[in-house]
Amino acid sequence: MADLIAPGEVWLVGAGPGDPDLLTRKAERLIAAASIVFHDALVGPGVLDLIPPHVARVSVGKRAGRHSRTQPAIDALLVEAAQAGHRVVRLKGGDPSIFARSTEEIDALARHGIRVRICPGITAASAAAASAGISLTLRGTARQLRFVTAHARDSDPLDLDWATLAAPGGTLAFYMGRGAARHISQQLIAHGLDAATPVLVATSVSLPGECLVHTRLDLLALVIGKAPDIDPALILVGEAVRRRAPAEIEKQLCKSSPPGLQHRNP
Amino acid sequence: MADLIAPGEVWLVGAGPGDPDLLTRKAERLIAAASIVFHDALVGPGVLDLIPPHVARVSVGKRAGRHSRTQPAIDALLVEAAQAGHRVVRLKGGDPSIFARSTEEIDALARHGIRVRICPGITAASAAAASAGISLTLRGTARQLRFVTAHARDSDPLDLDWATLAAPGGTLAFYMGRGAARHISQQLIAHGLDAATPVLVATSVSLPGECLVHTRLDLLALVIGKAPDIDPALILVGEAVRRRAPAEIEKQLCKSSPPGLQHRNP
Repeated sequence: MADLIAPGEVWLVGAGPGDPDLLTRKAERLIAAASIVFHDALVGPGVLDLIPPHVARVSVGKRAGRHSRTQPAIDALLVEAAQAGHRVVRLKGGDPSIFARSTEEIDALARHGIRVRICPGITAASAAAASAGISLTLRGTARQLRFVTAHARDSDPLDLDWATLAAPGGTLAFYMGRGAARHISQQLIAHGLDAATPVLVATSVSLPGECLVHTRLDLLALVIGKAPDIDPALILVGEAVRRRAPAEIEKQLCKSSPPGLQHRNP
Repeated sequence: MADLIAPGEVWLVGAGPGDPDLLTRKAERLIAAASIVFHDALVGPGVLDLIPPHVARVSVGKRAGRHSRTQPAIDALLVEAAQAGHRVVRLKGGDPSIFARSTEEIDALARHGIRVRICPGITAASAAAASAGISLTLRGTARQLRFVTAHARDSDPLDLDWATLAAPGGTLAFYMGRGAARHISQQLIAHGLDAATPVLVATSVSLPGECLVHTRLDLLALVIGKAPDIDPALILVGEAVRRRAPAEIEKQLCKSSPPGLQHRNP
């Protein structure tokens, strides 16, 4: 098992949305083969429970707006561990290739001649769609899917091409959208997207406290104000995310939130 | 194990890109708990090997341009199996929420009062990025990621909003892009995207015959003509997919294709 990772090698591993059953088989094996694991604050507790007791674990604690370590400090920790001969796993919430700042870590490791490889993970939008029982694309109607980060660099304004985002025919997935929800709603409507466009707000996707709220674009800011704020919010927008098969899906919505939130539907 | 799926229930399960190690732990358990599995032609052979011998398996054989069964025929098979009391798993290549026509199956099952649930999978773009050692997003540079299907409905032309696709600042992932490669290249350049924009063409992602070719937008049609055509092609376009850390990644490229293909790089 341990020879999956050579000493001095680093794997960036997607931890998925939180439920340890949504890890890949490969990620599970890499975690078991590591000698040290560095993980985000966003990695689910059930995933962390899979780290064997003898493996060192280091929280690098990144969350939107609350970085306990800067990115260069994390890069340096990875380089140091690899140079010390560790078999390094860097666990990232979701998928390492989507809004995970993997490039900074890959480049830092490469500059030191350290081999780095990547194991993909389930990204939040896929997991939210699965939990809600919907598809993110719809043949003929939603032939495009756009992932957008709504988390601007520190003090930058959220400068997006609203005119193209508001074009019909696609699904939008705004990652880390809580703070920008009102702006997203206002800008999309101002640029021509129908105020009644279906929206799904998802927090704690795949975890026991998962909350999925179906609403419409003009009610987004209202609804997100009531969603549990323990976790970044994913905001899905478009005809594809309209609620389907309500009888069975209903039960899954907002396991831990007030009953009033469960029935917001266009 | 078997009680993961109730008799008469259907799970749409993401089989990921092909490597059985890129299945989720949950998908593995669902496959083991099924009494019948319906699968696409695109599901990897190693994934199919995980189906226990006593479980019925039915290939529904969908591939771009070669449907051995129509979608309504597949819907009817799923309904029939559920109504017969089977514990049904419908295995789909990649992720059920992305270009997988899940909505048709969900709606058909719901019309018959059949409970349907979804287990997400690793989509091809995530897996291709992982294999290539790159990220699909780049902080500050590629803040958007757009998934587009390049497979038009039967005889329809590929009618996409090229002006917005050609806008800088994002990464494009064209699924099933082989047939449309020349058109994609011409249209993006005609609408202003730099001819030297980095492109990654990926086929058989995560499988033993995986082929990853780095090229540039204006050489896309030339390169794709030489890629193995046993499998749909994924075309990634944008600054984020520029090759990184070449020394170690190089070895992974085009395991089974002519050596000449390995070194096409902008």
